Amino acid sequence: MFKLTFLGTSSGVPTRHRNVTSLALQTTHNRDWWMIDCGEATQHRLQRLPLSVHDLVGICITHVHGDHSYGLPGLLASASMTGRKKPLLLIAPAAIKAWIDATLLHTELFLTYPLIHIDVDSAPVVHAAAGLTVSRHALSHRAPSVAYRFALETSRWKLDKTALQAAGAPPGPAWGLLQAGQDALLDDGTVLRAAAFRQTETQRATVVIGGDNDTPSLLADACADAQLLVHEATYTEAMLQKVGPGPTHSSVQRVAQFAEAVRLPNLILTHFSARYHNAEGMAELEAEARLHYSGELFLARDFDSYELDAAGVLTKVPAKSSFSGD
Amino acid sequence: MFKLTFLGTSSGVPTRHRNVTSLALQTTHNRDWWMIDCGEATQHRLQRLPLSVHDLVGICITHVHGDHSYGLPGLLASASMTGRKKPLLLIAPAAIKAWIDATLLHTELFLTYPLIHIDVDSAPVVHAAAGLTVSRHALSHRAPSVAYRFALETSRWKLDKTALQAAGAPPGPAWGLLQAGQDALLDDGTVLRAAAFRQTETQRATVVIGGDNDTPSLLADACADAQLLVHEATYTEAMLQKVGPGPTHSSVQRVAQFAEAVRLPNLILTHFSARYHNAEGMAELEAEARLHYSGELFLARDFDSYELDAAGVLTKVPAKSSFSGD
Repeated sequence: MFKLTFLGTSSGVPTRHRNVTSLALQTTHNRDWWMIDCGEATQHRLQRLPLSVHDLVGICITHVHGDHSYGLPGLLASASMTGRKKPLLLIAPAAIKAWIDATLLHTELFLTYPLIHIDVDSAPVVHAAAGLTVSRHALSHRAPSVAYRFALETSRWKLDKTALQAAGAPPGPAWGLLQAGQDALLDDGTVLRAAAFRQTETQRATVVIGGDNDTPSLLADACADAQLLVHEATYTEAMLQKVGPGPTHSSVQRVAQFAEAVRLPNLILTHFSARYHNAEGMAELEAEARLHYSGELFLARDFDSYELDAAGVLTKVPAKSSFSGD
Repeated sequence: MFKLTFLGTSSGVPTRHRNVTSLALQTTHNRDWWMIDCGEATQHRLQRLPLSVHDLVGICITHVHGDHSYGLPGLLASASMTGRKKPLLLIAPAAIKAWIDATLLHTELFLTYPLIHIDVDSAPVVHAAAGLTVSRHALSHRAPSVAYRFALETSRWKLDKTALQAAGAPPGPAWGLLQAGQDALLDDGTVLRAAAFRQTETQRATVVIGGDNDTPSLLADACADAQLLVHEATYTEAMLQKVGPGPTHSSVQRVAQFAEAVRLPNLILTHFSARYHNAEGMAELEAEARLHYSGELFLARDFDSYELDAAGVLTKVPAKSSFSGD
């Protein structure tokens, strides 16, 4: 149903192995994809992945801070320089639109495609098309911040084979006609109505992707029927206590306890402080998470991909061999 | 006298091995350094080099286009997040200052240090201190563009040893006193005046670093007494003819012919179109350059460093072993 690829997993500043925040979200529908946040050098990450900026449908920005947005000007410019014509959605705070307008003006950037801004404050549902509903959910951070909830519903017709067998129509040319939506005439003169032998198969999956946030419980409603939450976990609870409430980030413990409380089946943590970027640091974060959360847990790394299927099972996709690791 | 390190050598868009434009310039004075242009992800390049943003004195922007400026917001923000207090000079068009102001406002960025803007149009000499004079020279591009000329003059006192020997003062404690600026009394009662035995040794070097420009001859005056020109050479002359004058860039041939005409001893070409980024393409550019220029020639690559000494000799510095090549 969904494929997620992490383009940046560091909080605040980039490090040698982790870039600032960005995430790519694909559906099984087609080649189209969405981007959630766009830190500086996100377009550089894309050069190592089979994701083209020409297939990008929309960019969702969670909040105005630079480590989630400074990659926008370069990405928009490069899309122009490589000839994009298709409209691009920008779901973002009004201030991001104002900043992009200032960028276009002052740096003499002319886009070759329409950039369609949807103000994140305009309505709870910010996008709905082709079975995908994107809604935003307010978080708590020192700048206004939101989570985006992607709910995908796919329906397809399939032949009701049991009913066909019962009606005395064995597999044969008639099945092909019915599958194509046409009525079929059997040798004995019976007319099989296409509408009578069709079943609807519906699959659903919901993913919630948080922005910066110090209060995970704000996502209780958004996560009620979700299979996966991606949430920042900037540091351990002990470090959060030491740093104080100023940065308004979450600890691993707070996110893990929330996910456990709402019985969320899958949790991916990201947006780690640079102080944890070695194996020891990541092990410390993971240990704290497992202490409070019993579901399927992952700590994201740049270039990691995950697939969420219709049964709600989350699987880490093996890394591309073309990627050398830095 | 000068050390140059290329942080980005691609025109327009980044590629896997070449980032968009930026150059680091150090003098032999101290750890201070200057940056000329700041394309997106320049701060990511710095992570692989022994150049700290805390030793950065000033950033010179040649023109407003994004491939020369979109790295500024992230670089300024990261300098704040890592605690910079020292003022930072930003020598740039007024539009760049307006864009940075818009960035501060809309993305809630608060700098921990003074950012001092010097309007590139305010005066021909944009900076002069401690023997370094930085001037700007108008170029021809579709957006107003300049070259920056860095003229360094260092003077130091040294003992006039020939005169001391002639005065009957052989090497000994007296030389130490004179070197320290104090008069010295010899055993025979002679007083040697410090001022009488000092020589001034002055060294000079001048480097001109161009922005985007389709008319190299505009730099004739700036290059008159320069030892090195760094200039864009976006494509071959044949490709320039094919592309037409719209992009207002230089061909290799035009730059090489100009450098030959003004008898410039050293030339480094940069800002190559992505179409030349393989070995074959670079060989094509180099062949065209050598056809028209007989001086010391280099085609820059990301992370390449060069040293220019007081004798005007330009040397390529061996690459750091810590850099893996991508």
